[in-house]
Amino acid sequence: MSPTERLLFPPGIPTAKLSEAIQHPSHIKIRYFKLTINALPSRYLLACGNVSWESTYPDDWMQERSSMPFQCLPILEISSSQHGTGDKESGTSVVLAETTAVEFYLANLVGMMGDNEYEKYTIMALHSSSKAIMDNFATYCAFNVPEAMPKAFQKWRDEYLPQWVTIQDKHLVANGSNGHYIGDKLTLADIRAAVVINYFESQPDAKVWMGIISKSEALMKLKAKVESHPPIAALRASDEYKQHVEGTVGMFSTMSPWTQKL
Amino acid sequence: MSPTERLLFPPGIPTAKLSEAIQHPSHIKIRYFKLTINALPSRYLLACGNVSWESTYPDDWMQERSSMPFQCLPILEISSSQHGTGDKESGTSVVLAETTAVEFYLANLVGMMGDNEYEKYTIMALHSSSKAIMDNFATYCAFNVPEAMPKAFQKWRDEYLPQWVTIQDKHLVANGSNGHYIGDKLTLADIRAAVVINYFESQPDAKVWMGIISKSEALMKLKAKVESHPPIAALRASDEYKQHVEGTVGMFSTMSPWTQKL
Repeated sequence: MSPTERLLFPPGIPTAKLSEAIQHPSHIKIRYFKLTINALPSRYLLACGNVSWESTYPDDWMQERSSMPFQCLPILEISSSQHGTGDKESGTSVVLAETTAVEFYLANLVGMMGDNEYEKYTIMALHSSSKAIMDNFATYCAFNVPEAMPKAFQKWRDEYLPQWVTIQDKHLVANGSNGHYIGDKLTLADIRAAVVINYFESQPDAKVWMGIISKSEALMKLKAKVESHPPIAALRASDEYKQHVEGTVGMFSTMSPWTQKL
Repeated sequence: MSPTERLLFPPGIPTAKLSEAIQHPSHIKIRYFKLTINALPSRYLLACGNVSWESTYPDDWMQERSSMPFQCLPILEISSSQHGTGDKESGTSVVLAETTAVEFYLANLVGMMGDNEYEKYTIMALHSSSKAIMDNFATYCAFNVPEAMPKAFQKWRDEYLPQWVTIQDKHLVANGSNGHYIGDKLTLADIRAAVVINYFESQPDAKVWMGIISKSEALMKLKAKVESHPPIAALRASDEYKQHVEGTVGMFSTMSPWTQKL
């Protein structure tokens, strides 16, 4: 059976109806690989909410890939008992795609996008700064052509990662080094930054990367706060999460520990 | 004089006040280089709105860089006559940073973020797909280490750019190939995709890139629709815009035309 095409706009359903459905979800599936990385912020957010949810995984990614709205994961499949769309019984669900859009939707759903428009756009900016550094590492180091590797890793160690740490530290210190970017609230900005650190912790060069990151006490405090938040701590203690970590470490282990050769 | 530090949270001003200010702007400055690239979607959006605005430029970027919230541009400096913040007379203004956050703010301000929550998150997803391809090109081709160049450009020509075109074409065709992603509305999703094409048009390898992009009639129609939208067409006819194009072409001309050697 060929995989169901995930359309952005299912024919015949007004967007106002889809909008009602995603605002009143009854069950959410997050579809991604057995990895942490770009599904981890969403899984943390889902753990903090009160909508039932589950992780699903592609059986045969190569076969299923072209049925995805942007040929990539994660996506959300949102069921809603309201308004005749995304109905569990009819087997249909509303699809949201692209990591940033998915995280903004979920953060808004669980109350972690700030208390007003200014906080919202500032959380988006902080999120962008942290997501960009992960995307940049993936493109520039993890998936660059082999010829680029030594210089690319060197640039990352000596320039890109220290710069990200300096920027985050400045904002965290300005907020009193309490482990949050805004007031004493846990927001998507905190969660994305904690996931960046988690990403570097999972790599063969973890010792080098963590040596740079841990120079910021404020960032390490943020990481501890996010990871000890009860619903997130419970998720991290689950067998499923441990499988995702194993998968991630395994994937990264195919990269040599480059920085040690520099 | 050292440049003014741009703080995300100016001390002593509640975020609710900053929130009121950004929702009632009286004047907006967009600070970026004399280039199109990552300020172009914002300048298009500003042109479509009815708030007075101007482009500003750093005098000495190296000196000013560390005063920026994320050490990069564009940023917005928003003046508001309301609520005692961001007041033009007092010389203060509210700063919004990071390209994605700035574009979402401006698109919302000028009514180009969709008519409901579903359209909003779908526009965010489409925006993400188009912004990611520009970011990926910058990291993987324009600013990669020299050793990576031939293979990186080859991968772009044969894989990454055709994939982006296929994905966008699918969504545009599903909407009736009318030059829009959603209904018959001009949204941020259209604007970002048009800017991607503009970005590749400005490069030494423009002929190769446009050969790939122009295979999608729907994308070329979108580009024509965005660029002929009256306020955008007026902006593009201005001397200032022409300066930005010249700057961009000049910057890219330092890259060799790689693809012709492959």
